[in-house]
Amino acid sequence: MSPSSATRLSRPTRNALTTLSRPTSRSPFSPSLHHHRPISSFGYTQSRALIFPDYGDPASILSLHTHSLPPTHGDHLTLRFLASPINPADINQLQGVYPSKPTFTPDLGTPHPVAVGGNEGVAEVLAVGSGVKDLAKGDWVIMRSPGFGTWRTHAQTTAAGLLRLGEATREGITPAQAGTVSVNPCTAYRMLKDFVELKEGDWWIQNGANSGVGRAAVQLGREWGYRSINVVRGRETEAETEALKAELRELGADVVVTDKEAMERGFGDRVKEWTDGGRGKVRLGLNCVGGKLVTSMAKVLAPDSRVVTYGAMAKQPVAPPAGLQIFRNIGFDGFWVSRWSDKNPVDKEKTVKHVLDLTRQGKFKDSPMEEIRWDWDTKQDTLVRAVAGTLEGYRQGKGIFVFGDT
Amino acid sequence: MSPSSATRLSRPTRNALTTLSRPTSRSPFSPSLHHHRPISSFGYTQSRALIFPDYGDPASILSLHTHSLPPTHGDHLTLRFLASPINPADINQLQGVYPSKPTFTPDLGTPHPVAVGGNEGVAEVLAVGSGVKDLAKGDWVIMRSPGFGTWRTHAQTTAAGLLRLGEATREGITPAQAGTVSVNPCTAYRMLKDFVELKEGDWWIQNGANSGVGRAAVQLGREWGYRSINVVRGRETEAETEALKAELRELGADVVVTDKEAMERGFGDRVKEWTDGGRGKVRLGLNCVGGKLVTSMAKVLAPDSRVVTYGAMAKQPVAPPAGLQIFRNIGFDGFWVSRWSDKNPVDKEKTVKHVLDLTRQGKFKDSPMEEIRWDWDTKQDTLVRAVAGTLEGYRQGKGIFVFGDT
Repeated sequence: MSPSSATRLSRPTRNALTTLSRPTSRSPFSPSLHHHRPISSFGYTQSRALIFPDYGDPASILSLHTHSLPPTHGDHLTLRFLASPINPADINQLQGVYPSKPTFTPDLGTPHPVAVGGNEGVAEVLAVGSGVKDLAKGDWVIMRSPGFGTWRTHAQTTAAGLLRLGEATREGITPAQAGTVSVNPCTAYRMLKDFVELKEGDWWIQNGANSGVGRAAVQLGREWGYRSINVVRGRETEAETEALKAELRELGADVVVTDKEAMERGFGDRVKEWTDGGRGKVRLGLNCVGGKLVTSMAKVLAPDSRVVTYGAMAKQPVAPPAGLQIFRNIGFDGFWVSRWSDKNPVDKEKTVKHVLDLTRQGKFKDSPMEEIRWDWDTKQDTLVRAVAGTLEGYRQGKGIFVFGDT
Repeated sequence: MSPSSATRLSRPTRNALTTLSRPTSRSPFSPSLHHHRPISSFGYTQSRALIFPDYGDPASILSLHTHSLPPTHGDHLTLRFLASPINPADINQLQGVYPSKPTFTPDLGTPHPVAVGGNEGVAEVLAVGSGVKDLAKGDWVIMRSPGFGTWRTHAQTTAAGLLRLGEATREGITPAQAGTVSVNPCTAYRMLKDFVELKEGDWWIQNGANSGVGRAAVQLGREWGYRSINVVRGRETEAETEALKAELRELGADVVVTDKEAMERGFGDRVKEWTDGGRGKVRLGLNCVGGKLVTSMAKVLAPDSRVVTYGAMAKQPVAPPAGLQIFRNIGFDGFWVSRWSDKNPVDKEKTVKHVLDLTRQGKFKDSPMEEIRWDWDTKQDTLVRAVAGTLEGYRQGKGIFVFGDT
């Protein structure tokens, strides 16, 4: 369903001078007169964006807004989005409970300032102003930092916040892959690399192993020769649980257990068995769940190991016995890829490119995604439902807007 | 009450050949025939030790045991202890709940193997065997690692486990000061130096501020230009609380509050006031209490700060909200000076010597201690009560055996 880059590039750019004009009504239900091509008079590009005027329940605050972008000039570029995922953090941001706040701006021609939803995505450069040096028409770009507002068809911005994916980098990469490389794979990558020095053959353990980050970590860890113990929530039936375990083993997981198994007495002995009688050391724990499960995981770590928390799905804090910290020197860190990206732009770029290299080589698969096609005429209702649906969790992984005929 | 080194050195060494013999009864109630000098025939030194045959309640397992040490030979040295503190960890060790286990040995002439209590202390070298190179009669030594068994009048050992305090190092230092430099001051020193890079003017916060470690940290921090927020448990009366606050400010504490104050709403605002409207950053938390107090403390830390846990007096885990870890990158570490000492023998020596230098310069005061004089004739009951009393907590700080006429 996702358009290939070849398809994209063969189409006329959207800011071509034309005499057609388009309605700019905020209502998604107003009939679109020109459903094939959002083009405007005098070089203006038409854009549609999922906007919100204030925090609240996603289903009630989001609306589809149409507005014009002026001709590309100066140090500005005009982007057309190709793919923008719906991450859980995006939902938290809409709800106002995420520390990274969007910018509410009057620039979109609304009566009151609004923000555009979405933080991750990939876009192609439609046009560049005369002052833009390092980016050219046809380049793909991803966002260096969150807060851009990626749930929109087109946008205008400067080059500073963009990371270029040149021809070589994006070869063989789908928009969905490029549009989801910044958050989950980077999170997994840095957590495996930056907290404990794992050597080939060393073990690590994670919960939420079937999450996007979890699946990325399984594959990256395998690529680097690290061996993994993966904890997943048990499914409704044993058959489903076994299928999930098999799926993760297929990705490269060495061991997969349910959270119940990980919290049973004797888990430590099982870990010993798996790790060659304890000669293999478990040196790192990755946690996106919280609660007592993390204590069970921390107890099987070798002294001087660390647990890195990047999520709290169980909404319970990590509360390890003090003895684990003091006498076994188990450290507890947090990781937030947004903060890391802001502080490490060069490493961010390297990480993204390495993951895309591995993807191209068939060594890294993106996580299951539910693609929601976003054409110019796609109804507000469809788009908003896709966002609100993330609250319930997509059966096939997370949702991603893949832009079609915009 | 503590004997000066001059006094110690002017006395005859204890392994001088003499024809006097002494009773070796284990009972502390048997009359001592020769209460002035524990000397034996043919170069044997008599020693008395607080031993225990197995873990349990300190008051019921400890007994005072008298035994002989052979003439000093080969790579062995004979030590006479000068001062040995009673640390809370020593009690936990007796109870069998401390991860550092003592050695149970038959070498002390008991029918069954026994261990000697105590882990910290300072001794003078009475005699060295012909194979000993770097230590000489008259040197002071402290233990490099825990597990030595320091609650005894004399011991024989090799040089490997000893850290020499030469003439210059121990000048102006009392045995009580030298005997308590390894654990609390080293703990405070390394926690202030090894987890966060504090700069002059930076702030840090600790609970248990009136503990031995807390008082050491206040003084070392002040010496290095770090500013401290100190949390203490409120005393029974307001006057007592105020007196304690004043005492800590006298030592160098910038701010002292009770745990209740630190857990009140508005604590963050008060911290802001103290730290120049938030321009001063609180970058480190030291914790020996645990529980919700630590969350309150962690909340006033600047992003990228760390909390180091070295005790758990409240017997409650540290359970910070995940957001503090993920979004503010607050890390949670543990510190155990025993493990650190074993791994960093060179730094241990430097740290000890630096603290003793500061002590000599009047910049570092040892914590309040209740001295229990241990003479040859001191009764088992007195010594055991001193240990058991630590469970209730000495009003004047911790207990320390200061050896007199042994």
